[in-house]
Formats: sequence, structure tokens, C-alpha cells
Amino acid sequence: MRFAYCLYVIGALVVSVGLTMLFPIGWALYYRDSGLWPLVHSMLISVCVGLLLILAFRRKDKQIMNHREGMAIVALGWLGAGLAGALPFLLADVFPTWTDCVFESISGFTTTGSSVMTDIESTPRSILMWRSLTHWLGGMGIIVMSLAILPFLGVGGMQLYKAEVPGPVPDKLKPRIKDTATVLWKVYVAISVVQCILLMFGGMTLFDAICHTFGTMATGGFSTKNLSVGHYDSAYIQWVITIFMFIAGANFSLHYRALIGDVKCFWKDSEFKFYAVATVIFTVLIALFIYGRNYDTWTESFRHAAFQVVSICTTTGFATADYELWLPFPQALLLFLMFLGGCAGSTGGGIKCMRVLLLLKQAYHELFRLVHPRAVKHIKLGGRIVPAEVMSGIWGFFILYVGLFVISSFLLTALGIDVLTAFAAVAACIGNIGPGLGTVGPAENFAHLPLAAKWVLTWCMLLGRLEIYTVFILFVPEFWRK
Amino acid sequence: MRFAYCLYVIGALVVSVGLTMLFPIGWALYYRDSGLWPLVHSMLISVCVGLLLILAFRRKDKQIMNHREGMAIVALGWLGAGLAGALPFLLADVFPTWTDCVFESISGFTTTGSSVMTDIESTPRSILMWRSLTHWLGGMGIIVMSLAILPFLGVGGMQLYKAEVPGPVPDKLKPRIKDTATVLWKVYVAISVVQCILLMFGGMTLFDAICHTFGTMATGGFSTKNLSVGHYDSAYIQWVITIFMFIAGANFSLHYRALIGDVKCFWKDSEFKFYAVATVIFTVLIALFIYGRNYDTWTESFRHAAFQVVSICTTTGFATADYELWLPFPQALLLFLMFLGGCAGSTGGGIKCMRVLLLLKQAYHELFRLVHPRAVKHIKLGGRIVPAEVMSGIWGFFILYVGLFVISSFLLTALGIDVLTAFAAVAACIGNIGPGLGTVGPAENFAHLPLAAKWVLTWCMLLGRLEIYTVFILFVPEFWRK
Repeated sequence: MRFAYCLYVIGALVVSVGLTMLFPIGWALYYRDSGLWPLVHSMLISVCVGLLLILAFRRKDKQIMNHREGMAIVALGWLGAGLAGALPFLLADVFPTWTDCVFESISGFTTTGSSVMTDIESTPRSILMWRSLTHWLGGMGIIVMSLAILPFLGVGGMQLYKAEVPGPVPDKLKPRIKDTATVLWKVYVAISVVQCILLMFGGMTLFDAICHTFGTMATGGFSTKNLSVGHYDSAYIQWVITIFMFIAGANFSLHYRALIGDVKCFWKDSEFKFYAVATVIFTVLIALFIYGRNYDTWTESFRHAAFQVVSICTTTGFATADYELWLPFPQALLLFLMFLGGCAGSTGGGIKCMRVLLLLKQAYHELFRLVHPRAVKHIKLGGRIVPAEVMSGIWGFFILYVGLFVISSFLLTALGIDVLTAFAAVAACIGNIGPGLGTVGPAENFAHLPLAAKWVLTWCMLLGRLEIYTVFILFVPEFWRK
Repeated sequence: MRFAYCLYVIGALVVSVGLTMLFPIGWALYYRDSGLWPLVHSMLISVCVGLLLILAFRRKDKQIMNHREGMAIVALGWLGAGLAGALPFLLADVFPTWTDCVFESISGFTTTGSSVMTDIESTPRSILMWRSLTHWLGGMGIIVMSLAILPFLGVGGMQLYKAEVPGPVPDKLKPRIKDTATVLWKVYVAISVVQCILLMFGGMTLFDAICHTFGTMATGGFSTKNLSVGHYDSAYIQWVITIFMFIAGANFSLHYRALIGDVKCFWKDSEFKFYAVATVIFTVLIALFIYGRNYDTWTESFRHAAFQVVSICTTTGFATADYELWLPFPQALLLFLMFLGGCAGSTGGGIKCMRVLLLLKQAYHELFRLVHPRAVKHIKLGGRIVPAEVMSGIWGFFILYVGLFVISSFLLTALGIDVLTAFAAVAACIGNIGPGLGTVGPAENFAHLPLAAKWVLTWCMLLGRLEIYTVFILFVPEFWRK
């Protein structure tokens, strides 16, 4: 474990985050808004701190990163980006406390989208652009790191990969790291550009189109409007966002394959089928329960049902409707979707379709074994046997997920927050969704929570994004032994 | 799969259930209450139906029961006992619908204790005695079947045992079935007698003492008072019940060993330690949060906290206080305890301490493996390695438990029940606890729920009591193939 090396890498990361602030600075210049100097100062501070770290911990031993270092870097890196990203909020005086600034920034980089911003539309637009950009960077970080950089690190990297990739069974796109990273980057950017153009066709300004695209592609959920996507009373815009959220919640390696011609790959992928079928079933069920009560027409019911199902299942968290006004059944379905999440290799959070699918397969498998105690049968996915250690890894993950959920909910209720709000807030933050139920529902935000609760939830967002393992492992005593 | 043989065994069971009605009939004669004829008729019907089944399906092939037959018998047997047990309620006109009668009876035999009885104290006492007796018989059934009869059936029986025993790692008390059954019977009866006497010292009548003992030892929770144990404003009675609920929630094979002199066995048992420590921690946490707010003195706070923690953790469900008036934190802790449950080999329900302990061990184990990818380390319990198939069996159980919880909650919310009530009602019924939160909290009951919801919950009680597997397996197509 070379701490110096870790800090060196973190330094490089913080410099990069600082440099991306040039984009919102451009918008600040264009709009001549008050976000300019806070952003410039934040950039300078980030770049300087990053450079200091680089210079202080530069070494000559270019030994390849081992998996412990890799895990420490991932955990600390996300934290470092979150802290650097909080600077513009702090310097622009957007929030009353620095806790809120860190909450909002971590919520951005983890692509959660839970917000403590009470009046979004009165905030300088360059700051809102930065806020949305943190999503896009976070999403890109998740995809590129998990599917491109980490597998390249060899054994150590594969372990890290196991911890970091949003799901258990990855597809290797191309054998060489640079190609893979470039390809994914291109896919991510290409889809983003298409969405942005389609949104502008619907009448959005370039600014709003970019911000909503950032929020969609990263399955983040920050909007530039107080009413979120509900601000746009346009079926076209809502369907465009629904479709692109769905795309962002699918495995990006499938998108790559589809773009190079293998469009059928989607229907050969068990996880994608599960994801698509679940989306359709939940949409139909919810539409049946909101038609006639909350909406007068079938088209409206289906649009809102589809939007909300995809938004929560992919863990985006955009809202077009206050689903707390719906009946208990649609609410319960949405609460369940908060745990499901997107596909492995997507920007989505949650437990992930792949894991849930494998858990269900094992449950059936155990029933089968009870009938045929002597039969040898393996759990298969796409025709291939799933190794036992992958299954036990999923179980370990699952129990940590449940454990984190339970303990964090306890902490929130201990701070006086009611049971439903506490459970939903924690579920929404661990799953990197955004809005919850109760007093943190889609029509409200997280601003009114006590400071301590915001720290608990910040912690949940980070853990959820980093697949829990990566952070928890830092607390295993053996991790620190030579 | 010999259906005739299964029905033959069910017939014998129904006859036995009918004969146990002699006990409440005795009380009906003593009190000269209106429960006499309904009980006599119920007994006659049960005995006749049972004898018809026996005579119709009597065969000569005394081949030993295979494990499929065993599982079918367990599932259908509990159902049969539940239906026979509903007759006295039906004939005595205690409830408005026969759904309620079945609900109450199944709630009794599964030792759940969820009730649809709105005015307990106006019900004939002989009927109340029958209601409490269903608990005691159900609890005895669970213990004797799981620790004595089933392991004796050999391979098939061991499989059945795996499905039926309330927990994964049993202790074989004595090699021979008759001895084991007799021993467990004696332990169960002996502890019951002691509790009954202690309750009478506290001023309870013999009738109330017996009924509350039945409810305690089976971790059932039916009381003879509208206010449950809260009726008795006696710290002595409440502590006696707390202690005996705790005893009933521990493994009965430990009690046997303690009674023959090996008192230290408790502290050598990992599960018992986990159970005891969890009870103490939760009690202290809750006492801290209710002291000064809900109760004025520490002794009162501790008494109510301990009572409620033990009542819910052991899945008894007696109430001394309306915990819905407590703060969110104690409520969240109690909600969590609804899932934990008692020890393996006890009358308690829930997921069981043993399973939760092993799940936590595996989560730590997975973290360890991430640090040491090449290390070979096994999950151990009490110094012994836990076989991989036991672990995957637990996982299968766990996911079925969660799946059943989710689907049943969906069904309840679809019937218009609010989210918190639905979740808590299902948790309370699958865990065989009794009262939940929301509109089925400790100060209310299940009577106001729609009929369909009562059937869903009846189903949950049965599945929860039979460790889910035993019932779900009937829906695996392979089960029915030759």
C-alpha cells in the first residue's frame, strides 16, 4: 500500500476536475452572471491543490497499481472530486452551509440527483451548468473506469473492477485499454449529442437541453427547473427523456455493439431482457392504477407511468408528477424500483438488474435442489455457468446493501425523521436515485433535513455509487496490514 | 409421491386436533358458557372427517415417507389443522365471515397472533381457551416436528427437516426419535407449568395464566384481554412474560441441556449469544429514546423497552404499550426486529438469528476475500466450517423471504391499504409476529382489512411458519413429476 502513490493519482484527478470548470466558466461569460468569479477561483484552487499533491508525491517507481491501492484511489478519488466540486457552490454562496455544498456536489458526482437547492431557477445559470456537469462527469467516470481502465490493471485491477463495475459480469469490448476507453467515450458523447439535439427540437434552449442531457445520460436527475421535467408540459420532451433514460440505464457495451451493427445483441442479453420486461410490466401496472384517478386519458397515464418507472428504475430521479399523490400501490411499486436499479455497465445505480436476476435464479435453484437433493445443477446466465465466487460476491454485496440501508435508516430516525421518509431517503441515496417519499418526495427536496442527516445521506450516496465494497473494505483491519 | 398416503397422515392429524378440543370443552363445562356446543360439534366434525380420511386412504405399504411426501404433508397438515381449528369460531358465531375464522385459526396454529377479534373480553372463555390452545399446539408442532420427528425420517426426512426446522443448523439431542420427542415435550410442558404458576403468583386467574402461558411459550401472542398484557398493570407479570418469551425464543435443545445440568451450554452457542446481545442492545437503545418522553422513570422505560423488544424479536407480539406513540427511532428498531426473529429450534418465527448471523459472517468474508483474493477462508460457526450448501440454502431462503414480502406488500397496497400499514402487516405475518404498524398497530387489529387482504396475510402466515420453501416447492413443476 503506497499512500504517496494514491495521493499522486488523486492529485491528477483533482486537477482534471478543476479544468472541466472551464466549461461552465464559458457559460458564465456568455450569460455574464455572478457565477464567473466563484468558478474561476474554484478552478484555480482545485488545479493548485491537485498540482501540489502531484509534485509532493511524484515518485519514480512506476510499478503497476495493486488492487488495494486501486480501491483506496476509487474511494478517495470520488471524495476528492466531490470536495473540489463543492467549491463553486461554496464561493457563489448558493447554500447556507458548507454541508449543503458538499451534499450537492457529491450528489452530482455520484449521479444521485438528491438536491438541497430550494429555488433552482434563481441560481446563476453557470452554477447550474456546473451542477449538471458533475453528473455527466460522474457518469462518464463510472462507465469508463469500470469498463475500460480497471480491467486493464491486471489481477489487482480485476479485483478493483469487481468492486467498482456496476454489476458482476462485464463484457470485454476490446482487448486494449485505450481503444475501449475511446469507444465508450465516443458512445457516451454521441448519444448525449443526439439527445441534446432532440430536446432542442422540442423547444428547449441549448442551455436547458445540455443540462437535461447531462442529467439523463448520467442517470443523475438534476434539472434546471424547480418543477424538474414537469416544467415542460410537452409530451414530446417527456418521451425523449424517458427513452434516453432507458438507454442510459442499459449496458453501454451493448450500445457500442449496436452502433457497429449488431443491433440484435440487446435481445441476446439476459439482463437487458429482464430490464426491458420489468420496465414494461411496471409501467402497465402503474398506468392501470393512475388512469381515471390522477389522469384523464390513457396516453397521459402511460406517459407519466413510463416516465416515473424509467426515471426511478434507472435511478435518474427526474419527476414529471408528484407520485405521492398516487394510490398506495403505484407508490409501493416505485419504492421497490428504488432497489432494483439499472443494468451492469450503465450509469444507473441500485442493486442492478443483473444481481437481482441472479438472486432470483438462485432462489429457484434452491427450490429445485430441495426436490432433487442429489441433482447437480448450475446457475446459468446466457448459457454460461455463473461461478460460485461470483454468486457469493453478489450475496456479500446484497447483505452489505441491506445492512447499510438498515443502519442508515436507524440513524435518520434517531435524528427525529419519520420512518417512511427515513427509509425512502436512504433508499434513494444508496441507490443514487434522487427523490424519495414522505418529506423528501418528488415535490420536495432534502434541504430541510438536519445537518447530521445530510452527512449520513452523503455517505450513503458515496457507498452506493462505489458498490459499497470499495468503501467498506477500508474498514477491514486486514486491508491496512502489510 | 403417494397422495393417498399424504391424505392418510393428514386425517390422523385432523383427528388429533379434534381431540384436543376436549380441553376447552372442559372449561366450557366449568364456566357453563356458550362455547360448549360449538366446541363439541367442531370436535365431532373434525374427528369424523379425519377418520373418513384415514379409512379411505389406509394402505398396507408401510414404506417410509419420502421427502416430497414429507413436504406435502407439512404444508397440507398445517392447513388442515387451521381449517379444523376454525370450526369452533365459525359455529360459535364469533366472527362476521368465515374468512375471519380461518384467519384467526391459522394465526393461532402458525403462532402468529395477528387477530381479527375486536372485542376479546366479550367472547366466551372456552373459545378464548381454544384460541390460545391453537398457539400452544402450533408451537409444540414446530419444535417436536423439527427437532424430533423429521430428522428420523432419514435422507428424505433430513431434507424435510432442512425445510421445516426453524433454522439451518440443528443439534441432535438424542439418537432415537421417541426419546427426543418425549424430552422436548417434557421441556416444553415443564417450562409452561413454571410460567403458569409464576403468573398466578402475580394475581392472574388460572384461566388467564394458562392462556397467557400458551401465548408466551408458542411465541404466539393471543391474549384474553383487549389491552393484551398491558391490561395487567403489574411490573411483576410483565417481567415474567418478558423472561419466558425470551426463553421460548431460544433453542429448545439448549434448554434441555441446561435442565440436565449443562447450564454453560448457552454461552458456548454462537446463535444464543447473538440473540442475547441483540436483545440487550436494542432494549437499551429503545429505553434511552422513550425515557423522559413516553415514561417518567428509568425502570418503567426499561420494562416497556425490554417487553416490546423481546415480544417482537421472539415474534410473540404481546403488547404492553402502543409503540406507535414512540419516536421514529424506536419504531424503526422494532420494524427491523420483525425481520430478525428468534433462534433456530425455538417456537419463534422471522428470518432467525442463526441465518442473520451467517449472512453477516458471509458479508465480512467477502470483504476479506477482496483484500486477500487468493486466501482460502471458510465461514465458521462455533469453530466448525459451515458447508457451502447450507449457505446457499440460507441465501435461497432469504431471497424467497424478501420476494414474498415484496409481492405480498404489493398486493395489499393494490387493495388500497397505505404503504406503511401494508409493509408492516406483511412483515408481521410472514414473521409470525402479530401486530404491525400503521392501522394494524398494537392498539388496533386486523379486522378492518378487506377480505382479500386477510387471505393474502393468511397465506403469509402459513408460508412464514413453514419456512417458505415447504409451500413454494409445491409450485415447482419438477416436484410433481414422477
